Amino acid sequence: MQKILDDINELMAANTDRGKVADYIPQLACVDSNQFGITVVLADGQVFSAGSSAQLFSIQSISKVFTLTMALGKIGDALWSNVGREPSGDAFNSIVQLEHEHGKPRNPFINAGAIAVVDAIMMGHQPKETLAEIVQFVRYIANDSSISIDDKVARSEVETGHRNASLAHFMASFGRIKHLVDCVLGTYYHHCSIAMNCEQLAQAGMFLALDGMHQNSTNRVVSAQRARRINSLMLMCGHYDGSGEFAYRVGLPGKSGVGGGILAIAPGKASIAVWSPGLDSVGNSKLGTEALEILVQQTGWSIFGH
Amino acid sequence: MQKILDDINELMAANTDRGKVADYIPQLACVDSNQFGITVVLADGQVFSAGSSAQLFSIQSISKVFTLTMALGKIGDALWSNVGREPSGDAFNSIVQLEHEHGKPRNPFINAGAIAVVDAIMMGHQPKETLAEIVQFVRYIANDSSISIDDKVARSEVETGHRNASLAHFMASFGRIKHLVDCVLGTYYHHCSIAMNCEQLAQAGMFLALDGMHQNSTNRVVSAQRARRINSLMLMCGHYDGSGEFAYRVGLPGKSGVGGGILAIAPGKASIAVWSPGLDSVGNSKLGTEALEILVQQTGWSIFGH
Amino acid sequence: MQKILDDINELMAANTDRGKVADYIPQLACVDSNQFGITVVLADGQVFSAGSSAQLFSIQSISKVFTLTMALGKIGDALWSNVGREPSGDAFNSIVQLEHEHGKPRNPFINAGAIAVVDAIMMGHQPKETLAEIVQFVRYIANDSSISIDDKVARSEVETGHRNASLAHFMASFGRIKHLVDCVLGTYYHHCSIAMNCEQLAQAGMFLALDGMHQNSTNRVVSAQRARRINSLMLMCGHYDGSGEFAYRVGLPGKSGVGGGILAIAPGKASIAVWSPGLDSVGNSKLGTEALEILVQQTGWSIFGH
Amino acid sequence: MQKILDDINELMAANTDRGKVADYIPQLACVDSNQFGITVVLADGQVFSAGSSAQLFSIQSISKVFTLTMALGKIGDALWSNVGREPSGDAFNSIVQLEHEHGKPRNPFINAGAIAVVDAIMMGHQPKETLAEIVQFVRYIANDSSISIDDKVARSEVETGHRNASLAHFMASFGRIKHLVDCVLGTYYHHCSIAMNCEQLAQAGMFLALDGMHQNSTNRVVSAQRARRINSLMLMCGHYDGSGEFAYRVGLPGKSGVGGGILAIAPGKASIAVWSPGLDSVGNSKLGTEALEILVQQTGWSIFGH
Repeated sequence: MQKILDDINELMAANTDRGKVADYIPQLACVDSNQFGITVVLADGQVFSAGSSAQLFSIQSISKVFTLTMALGKIGDALWSNVGREPSGDAFNSIVQLEHEHGKPRNPFINAGAIAVVDAIMMGHQPKETLAEIVQFVRYIANDSSISIDDKVARSEVETGHRNASLAHFMASFGRIKHLVDCVLGTYYHHCSIAMNCEQLAQAGMFLALDGMHQNSTNRVVSAQRARRINSLMLMCGHYDGSGEFAYRVGLPGKSGVGGGILAIAPGKASIAVWSPGLDSVGNSKLGTEALEILVQQTGWSIFGH
Repeated sequence: MQKILDDINELMAANTDRGKVADYIPQLACVDSNQFGITVVLADGQVFSAGSSAQLFSIQSISKVFTLTMALGKIGDALWSNVGREPSGDAFNSIVQLEHEHGKPRNPFINAGAIAVVDAIMMGHQPKETLAEIVQFVRYIANDSSISIDDKVARSEVETGHRNASLAHFMASFGRIKHLVDCVLGTYYHHCSIAMNCEQLAQAGMFLALDGMHQNSTNRVVSAQRARRINSLMLMCGHYDGSGEFAYRVGLPGKSGVGGGILAIAPGKASIAVWSPGLDSVGNSKLGTEALEILVQQTGWSIFGH
Repeated sequence: MQKILDDINELMAANTDRGKVADYIPQLACVDSNQFGITVVLADGQVFSAGSSAQLFSIQSISKVFTLTMALGKIGDALWSNVGREPSGDAFNSIVQLEHEHGKPRNPFINAGAIAVVDAIMMGHQPKETLAEIVQFVRYIANDSSISIDDKVARSEVETGHRNASLAHFMASFGRIKHLVDCVLGTYYHHCSIAMNCEQLAQAGMFLALDGMHQNSTNRVVSAQRARRINSLMLMCGHYDGSGEFAYRVGLPGKSGVGGGILAIAPGKASIAVWSPGLDSVGNSKLGTEALEILVQQTGWSIFGH
Repeated sequence: MQKILDDINELMAANTDRGKVADYIPQLACVDSNQFGITVVLADGQVFSAGSSAQLFSIQSISKVFTLTMALGKIGDALWSNVGREPSGDAFNSIVQLEHEHGKPRNPFINAGAIAVVDAIMMGHQPKETLAEIVQFVRYIANDSSISIDDKVARSEVETGHRNASLAHFMASFGRIKHLVDCVLGTYYHHCSIAMNCEQLAQAGMFLALDGMHQNSTNRVVSAQRARRINSLMLMCGHYDGSGEFAYRVGLPGKSGVGGGILAIAPGKASIAVWSPGLDSVGNSKLGTEALEILVQQTGWSIFGH
């Protein structure tokens, strides 16, 4: 495994077509695109890394996997009355679908859906309390108490967040947002600004590779069925309107963020985190996707074969 | 396994909420909805069946898996210049997406995409020749030379096919259909009218469960990579705008048809065919989906767990 | 003329199918639907009224005609870089069109367009100053210094205004709103809450019937060309997605508001205000439209005949 | 008037930005764009022309005004159950709106609507008979028995007509087309291929300028109300998604065709035909629109002023 990751790291270092760093959030725009990191945690707990795997980055939309897990824990299937489970077929920030479907977002991983998920877990609390709870949960599943929010990125997002404000107010106009829109948005921006490195992120994904079990204990994070369902949502909707492409090329459930990170799950085999800031045209890490494609070819981990 | 299938068959027989038989194709509208059949072929070749597994039905859109396989064999990745690989987010016969994307259908399993796939495999031949080739291919992968087209259903479709004619002419207006529209449509309707039973259909799907190998020989139908990619397309797009729901509940690549059949693949483990004519609101077999959900719960075959 | 109006008033009083009072703004929902008023001011200054023509009502979207006039006066054709001049083909609060056209609203009379117009006339000022200027302008063209804003209605709108907030933030995300979104919205809600009666409103529309001249003086409010162009926009877009219907049935430029008012212009002949709170399915005064239809039949004022 | 037209003709001859000749119909693509003609017929019957006013051109969509008139004569308001009366907000050949509104075209002047109108006037007859009837009607209103169809253009359209075939089949799938799709389309293409010059076309429009009266007799072509309503439809929808622009700049009801012709009506004053083959970006004659804009400025004929 170490050899595979070293080879991938070398290949990626030589790759000159690295995509484009997200520029709509000022704090992300200044990240150096010449970085690449990867970590694989096997089901038995062994950890392999290559490249800048210890470098912190903004996990952005990957956080949506964690808040979705929390929301299902808090209100269960009631969540699905306000959020759908289908691929959107549109860009991550599209509002067209919302109008056609009475303010109900297509799935929990497009921006509108993730905002609705945040609203669902607030349960009357203030943003500060909710954020503390989210960070606490991420630290628990990653087994790392050092994980925290990068306030500079959070503030940077708030300032450029008209599109998300539009989505939130739109849903609110259909009664689908229960808390004050500004509170929900503040919580949303901050949880997207959690900073993690590949090693932490791969650890945080382990419960999804282990049918819901926590990796360092006999505790269960979620039921086996719920872990599988979260994986299915990641596969169907985890890469915005590039989800079909990712399933076709990589063949693993995965969730990307505009910070350049991707969390991918090989059920029963491994949790994988990869990071490279340059994005492709639909907003997914370009080298990250390529690295995962090679990794799956080498390991045969595609969920579509045996 | 036989016990599981018998239990499912019994449960389904007692189920009174059976969905609604497709009524837009006259010949399908008169099928008795009180039928249910299921066949599982394990990777080692063992066959288990329950219910009306020997009853012929119209496979309809399931045929799109077979023509997609043929098209990839004939022109390879060139296919993707005229057909996409993303979930559509719309109904199976929607034309809105076509207008927004210059006549290029989102994936090979919505009607427009399947019509484009048929055009791709015609390669200058007449409908009759192309249909002979399709039937030949299905007989080969199912290892059953008795499979054939139900002409009555085919004629029934032609008469009610204005919507498909609209899709085909629309694509033709963008130069994406190379043959005469009427010839492409004729071929399309006839290949949708192949009649099979659960036993034949499950056998026909075996190459997708076996990483591309033919089940009764050392022959390879397609490469392992291609088999996995076809499975990924089935998972992402195989149940129209209910694909996310199917992935969430069942967790297997699958393709449904409005005749009430579903072909599902458990990679490395089994090929499954189920049939019950009543459909849910998005056009997928209601009892078929429920039966697969139970089967996967009993066997743990979900590709999202281990 | 008085006879015509009296007959219309009598007919309307007997009409039991009065439409539905707007219910999404609490303060409007409690208006009694059994009211009807009409005022005609002829080009020579003669005034004729019938029914509750002295009863104040909330002019709502009719105010958009006045802010459009002000915006054209302030920045001229530069306005059209951020607002279009085509019918929208969608509901008054649709956001779909905005996404398809980069945040540029189709015309100044749908909500998004009117918000952009308000932003254009603020020119760095505070909402209070801008509102004072708007009220000042309406008093001037109506020749009536008693006209003012109904604060209760304005507050009522703010509380239910998520949809408009969504539209404003959406445009802001494309850089099309220059002032703070909350300030623009506050101004927008307040100017929609101007209270007028039919007599005042018909007077306020006189400059559009007189090719831009003020009715009580030799002053010019706008150039003849601009008055004609505002009339053309009213005809094309003044009744949301019922504009074609209004042109077909009535044949006069007109602007409706959800308060139940309609201002209609017979160029060179008259300015007409009609009010009845019950709305049809697309949000235009039901009896108001019927009254105008009869009035035009009686007078031959349609701009499509002679 | 002659002086005005001569000046316009001179200005247009000097104009080098002439737009782009329609290229999707082969027979239209080869027309020389350096041509311009204009004819004004006053209400009293006086005729003024300038430029190539005697040169035949393909009237294309302008024919839709005449078939609409015929359809209203044959089935009256029953037409509106299958065709709407609102601006479409989309391109002339858009199918998106059709899907959203159950196959009912938004108005009689977009392609889908005009096809539905042709279906309405066929009333069980063959294309040949219907075409004879249409030509007969156009000859009658133009008072010129030499008007006929250009078969070469008609054949040229049939060959490139996949988009219209798509629209027709789409409507047929909702039961909105009663005759064989191929017959309706054949009739549609041929009636679009009527060849007229500016002098004939301006004469043909006279009944719309005269509140429905035939220009050379005491006969009435349609009622005054119907003439006004047709004018209103021309204003609202006569220039596809450039209708608002035309109303704003010209201020007259008008109908354009991709052959470069425009018929404009100044109610009570004149019928105007103008022709220049170069089109603007939405498919309306570029010089034709500019010529009408100048003509209206010179004459004050805008329906939005006095």
